[in-house]
Amino acid sequence: MADLDNALPWLEALKWDADGMIPAIAQDQEGRIVMFAFMNRESLQETVNCGNAVYWSRSRRRLWRKGEESGFFQKVKSIRTDCDGDVLLLSVEQVGGIACHTGRESCFFNELSGDRWIAVDPVLKDPKEIYK
Amino acid sequence: MADLDNALPWLEALKWDADGMIPAIAQDQEGRIVMFAFMNRESLQETVNCGNAVYWSRSRRRLWRKGEESGFFQKVKSIRTDCDGDVLLLSVEQVGGIACHTGRESCFFNELSGDRWIAVDPVLKDPKEIYK
Repeated sequence: MADLDNALPWLEALKWDADGMIPAIAQDQEGRIVMFAFMNRESLQETVNCGNAVYWSRSRRRLWRKGEESGFFQKVKSIRTDCDGDVLLLSVEQVGGIACHTGRESCFFNELSGDRWIAVDPVLKDPKEIYK
Repeated sequence: MADLDNALPWLEALKWDADGMIPAIAQDQEGRIVMFAFMNRESLQETVNCGNAVYWSRSRRRLWRKGEESGFFQKVKSIRTDCDGDVLLLSVEQVGGIACHTGRESCFFNELSGDRWIAVDPVLKDPKEIYK
C-alpha cells in the first residue's frame, strides 16, 4: 500500500476502509495496550476536538465516547499513524486504570499457553459495580 | 460481541472476520508498538510452530514471514488476545531493531501535530540497504 502522503489534509491522508473505518490501538502511559476499536472520520474529529477518545461502535452504530457509562475515559496525549496511514495509535491516560468491560486494566488479558487461552490478569473491579 | 470462550480449541475461540483474518499488533520488549498486520489461521499456526511472526499479506495473497527479505525477523515471546477474541497482541523481540520498511524502529512514526502528520522518528537504515 502507498505510504502516507502527509501533504494531504490530515483526515484525508488516512486510508479509511470500505466502511469508512480505521482501526485504533490505545496504549496507556506505561506502554500497556489497553484496547483496540474502530473510528470513523466523525469519531476521530471528535476525539481531536474534545481530547478524550471517541470510537465508533460498529454494533450500536453510533459514536462511542469511551467511559460514557463507566466513567473510565481516555485522555488522549498524542495520535500517531503508521507508514501507510491505515491504523491509528493513541497514547492515552486511562482514567481509573481500567479499560476493559471485564474490570481489568487492559482488554488483552488472555494469553496463549500451550493450546489454551488463559486469563492472566486480575479483575480490579466487579463489572456490576462499574455498569450499574 | 461475545467474550472469548476459552473452553474452545484455541484457534476456534478466536473471531476470524469474513475473510478469515484477524488483526495483529506487534509490540517490542520496550513496549513500543512496531507493527500492525493481519493473520489468517495458517499464518497464526505457523507463527506458533516456528516461533517467528508470520503474517498474511493481503496484497500479495501469501504467507509473509516477517523479515524474509530484510532479515528483521520478529521472535515471538507471547501471544495474547483481547476480551472478545478478535485481535491479537504479539510480544516480540524485533531482530535488528527495525520493523518498518522505511528503515525505522516502528511503523508508527507519523504524529498528528495541529492539522498535519509529521514524521517524528529517525530513519535508522536506508531502505536501499535493507532491500537489495
